[in-house]
Amino acid sequence: MKEYRILIDTQDDKGLVYKISKVLYNHNLNIEKNSEFVDEDEKKFFMRTVVSGEFDQEKLILDIKAVTPINTAIQISDNSKKDIVLLATNESHVLGDLLIRYFDGELNANIKAVISNHDELRDLVEKFDIPFHFISADDTSREDHENQIKDVINTYSPQLIVLAKYMRILTPSFVVSYPKKILNIHHSFLPAFIGANPYKQAHHRGVKIIGATAHYVTDDLDEGPIIAQDIVRVNHSYTWQEMRREGRNVEKVVLANALQFLLEDRVFIHGNKTVIL
Amino acid sequence: MKEYRILIDTQDDKGLVYKISKVLYNHNLNIEKNSEFVDEDEKKFFMRTVVSGEFDQEKLILDIKAVTPINTAIQISDNSKKDIVLLATNESHVLGDLLIRYFDGELNANIKAVISNHDELRDLVEKFDIPFHFISADDTSREDHENQIKDVINTYSPQLIVLAKYMRILTPSFVVSYPKKILNIHHSFLPAFIGANPYKQAHHRGVKIIGATAHYVTDDLDEGPIIAQDIVRVNHSYTWQEMRREGRNVEKVVLANALQFLLEDRVFIHGNKTVIL
Amino acid sequence: MKEYRILIDTQDDKGLVYKISKVLYNHNLNIEKNSEFVDEDEKKFFMRTVVSGEFDQEKLILDIKAVTPINTAIQISDNSKKDIVLLATNESHVLGDLLIRYFDGELNANIKAVISNHDELRDLVEKFDIPFHFISADDTSREDHENQIKDVINTYSPQLIVLAKYMRILTPSFVVSYPKKILNIHHSFLPAFIGANPYKQAHHRGVKIIGATAHYVTDDLDEGPIIAQDIVRVNHSYTWQEMRREGRNVEKVVLANALQFLLEDRVFIHGNKTVIL
Amino acid sequence: MKEYRILIDTQDDKGLVYKISKVLYNHNLNIEKNSEFVDEDEKKFFMRTVVSGEFDQEKLILDIKAVTPINTAIQISDNSKKDIVLLATNESHVLGDLLIRYFDGELNANIKAVISNHDELRDLVEKFDIPFHFISADDTSREDHENQIKDVINTYSPQLIVLAKYMRILTPSFVVSYPKKILNIHHSFLPAFIGANPYKQAHHRGVKIIGATAHYVTDDLDEGPIIAQDIVRVNHSYTWQEMRREGRNVEKVVLANALQFLLEDRVFIHGNKTVIL
Repeated sequence: MKEYRILIDTQDDKGLVYKISKVLYNHNLNIEKNSEFVDEDEKKFFMRTVVSGEFDQEKLILDIKAVTPINTAIQISDNSKKDIVLLATNESHVLGDLLIRYFDGELNANIKAVISNHDELRDLVEKFDIPFHFISADDTSREDHENQIKDVINTYSPQLIVLAKYMRILTPSFVVSYPKKILNIHHSFLPAFIGANPYKQAHHRGVKIIGATAHYVTDDLDEGPIIAQDIVRVNHSYTWQEMRREGRNVEKVVLANALQFLLEDRVFIHGNKTVIL
Repeated sequence: MKEYRILIDTQDDKGLVYKISKVLYNHNLNIEKNSEFVDEDEKKFFMRTVVSGEFDQEKLILDIKAVTPINTAIQISDNSKKDIVLLATNESHVLGDLLIRYFDGELNANIKAVISNHDELRDLVEKFDIPFHFISADDTSREDHENQIKDVINTYSPQLIVLAKYMRILTPSFVVSYPKKILNIHHSFLPAFIGANPYKQAHHRGVKIIGATAHYVTDDLDEGPIIAQDIVRVNHSYTWQEMRREGRNVEKVVLANALQFLLEDRVFIHGNKTVIL
Repeated sequence: MKEYRILIDTQDDKGLVYKISKVLYNHNLNIEKNSEFVDEDEKKFFMRTVVSGEFDQEKLILDIKAVTPINTAIQISDNSKKDIVLLATNESHVLGDLLIRYFDGELNANIKAVISNHDELRDLVEKFDIPFHFISADDTSREDHENQIKDVINTYSPQLIVLAKYMRILTPSFVVSYPKKILNIHHSFLPAFIGANPYKQAHHRGVKIIGATAHYVTDDLDEGPIIAQDIVRVNHSYTWQEMRREGRNVEKVVLANALQFLLEDRVFIHGNKTVIL
Repeated sequence: MKEYRILIDTQDDKGLVYKISKVLYNHNLNIEKNSEFVDEDEKKFFMRTVVSGEFDQEKLILDIKAVTPINTAIQISDNSKKDIVLLATNESHVLGDLLIRYFDGELNANIKAVISNHDELRDLVEKFDIPFHFISADDTSREDHENQIKDVINTYSPQLIVLAKYMRILTPSFVVSYPKKILNIHHSFLPAFIGANPYKQAHHRGVKIIGATAHYVTDDLDEGPIIAQDIVRVNHSYTWQEMRREGRNVEKVVLANALQFLLEDRVFIHGNKTVIL
């Protein structure tokens, strides 16, 4: 069944639920799900409504704007499959997990392509009849490399770019080209162990729990809004390689959960945080 | 600040959010928090709204009833402390945990009394200047024993009765006297290990995880609507006593969380399940 | 590096660690890892030692038998890849997860074949160049069907048989043919929700946590020794299908963890429980 | 039953288990439990053995030293109650939790005294007939304040000092007076959110999981060897005060678990990490 997700992000104001639900009612929409969150400290209002039925989207947006504060952001998406492009390097566990979920029909998405700075994963990707683009970072400037990647990405016009263990730092110029569209999995429980080799760092520090974090990518590396996190318990007997093995299970699930949220249009960016309705 | 929690439980119907939020708006209420849940399979609608400001409760209820299906249940509670009575037997860990939270000001409640079928916990309870009633179950019928307990409970007119490891089975006649008012902590991850000695049962079965369950008490023992659950990992090296020691930490936290939900009027009973908004 | 795992399972007795470690020392073995567990209630002793170096296995077993109680069970395995056969029905998530781990080199195993009572998974399995055997259960007796499966299994002489969501009940006659060799994943937190449709059962009961259990298969369905369990939190807003989606992530990880234990020869069967060293 | 815990910490060497277990056997000790851990990277060997029976401790230590590398550290403790002193400031949740566990007989310890830089907790502590020492930090130098605290501590000669939310930083001079004897609970999942107000930091960062860490206190604030950690899930709807409320449950359990490990002599310090056998 065709559904639409209406996301409204605005300043808090008296009677917003009433005013907006009146507009929805007058448009004769069936409300399947409705959630709001008010950040009382920052006076922000977030609302996500899932509706079914046919309606005039432009008219609806105008009507909502008429009853809400200026600068209200309104986004309407339907529940059709989103086009996504994956970037990877040479680790197959997260990428493979996404491919299996894709094969399984679990992802409401079309994986249009996989791009990698190595060629190792071609065989895996092509098993699933997905185009694989190897774009070497050798003998090229960072800028040129990213431009080549952008050229490929742009041929697919994806709604989301998923970094499935893409182990290179993206430049601000790249990131700014895809605002609120890049999802990353970091292999630590952020903000602990930012940077390289977090499992080695965790082992060195002697922590008893390790984790993984899925977040939007912003200019600040490992600092974007967090979407999902999970953990697994370890102890002194784990080598850092064993921590990594356990951590990879967490990486897979955390990225899959975050992607699920994005594919369902459940995530608002709220400063450097997320609101998930 | 004085707040009111308005809980509405009804058949699902078109435009309910609009119609109800219009009533709230017309009563000039400030909405602090608003949550709804629709069970689409069973066509049930649940809404919890936290409001501030003064208003005419009776008028509000009438106005909501006017726009909602017949048999709509509406409950309005304020955020003042609820009176509660605790029942215990002779284990101090859960009871003591509640007493410390009470001392700490963490519970938005008045513990009016503790009733026990043993006298061991008197010393602990009286440290906190709370009346302790020892009502022996010896040399008396089950019916008489429960009647004595009811007599004491009723002198306090509590809004909630918390079984803080009360290790006797309550009769249907007792339970029916306090509908939706009795909270129990069961020392297993229900529905696993119903009945006596769940830690011994868990040890015997060789499970790798144990848990605890807080639930409303209904006629069916260990079968009431579940409010909160949590778990802890164990392994082959745990004796059943060690499982119990670990499990007790879980019991404390699960009961405290469930009680917190009840004190905040966040729990709807939905058949044999709960909806927590 | 070649390693050997020595597993000893016997009655507890004074000085066993000393006596056995003396034998190992006299055989000039390098001990990489050593763990013991004594079940004091049942007077049982379990020891797992990982050694490197060359030695005479038959002589070592004789020497250990000479210092341990009669009926001591001694098992020596090396760390080479184990041959395994997977059984599945028509769900791809667990099977696919194993295939990706296999592709990734994470499993110290050779997946020799996949057998299914449906043909849907052929395409997935053959992507990974693994033989797929479709053995229909239609128009055949249960006995004949299992005999056909056994014939295929036996051509591969696997050390382990993994039921990767094989949704048919195996007869005692089948189970007894592969003692201590069959690993199953059950999609609930056993002993809760034994039997069919555990996610529906969990949804109906209104639990706040769901889980999965990996266990050895014995005659009693869903009753074999538990090897690994894990859980995920849910709430009233989950449909049973959403519980299943979340639960599938747990199924994957729990089965992979249990398989890892078996591939590392870390699991002792102790009555209806496991000891994992 | 009287038990002894023998902890051995040394360089790894061939045959250590054999050589040490031979000594234990020759002393005619009953081994109740035995665990070893070898850090292969750093060539360190840790062994904890629980024995019953009477023996000559000095002779045993000499005999073990004779078969182990020089600089082997050997510690023998019995299972009698340890004397502990608690330091607190003005939060009662962790302190109260320890007092209830103490009252409940769960701690194998004597709480000899509570010292605080505020007087608020006197009433709570004295309910449990435990001496309370208020040592104000006002109008005194940090050095003088700590010296007063040390004077009080030293009158009790405790085996452990537990910082039950003592919210002042201890100077290196204080810490060095009680090597390997000070246990702290930090209200974050270290190394995330070191320093003041970790719940505010966590809220600001928008994490989806918060935690607590129990660790030995060393010169580096929040940097000592970690003994136990645990977490709880949060989301965007939590204010930092609600995160703190949830986090406090974790603080209690983590500190209690770490204290349990210390009271059972299960913790080795291994550089800046712990080995828990």
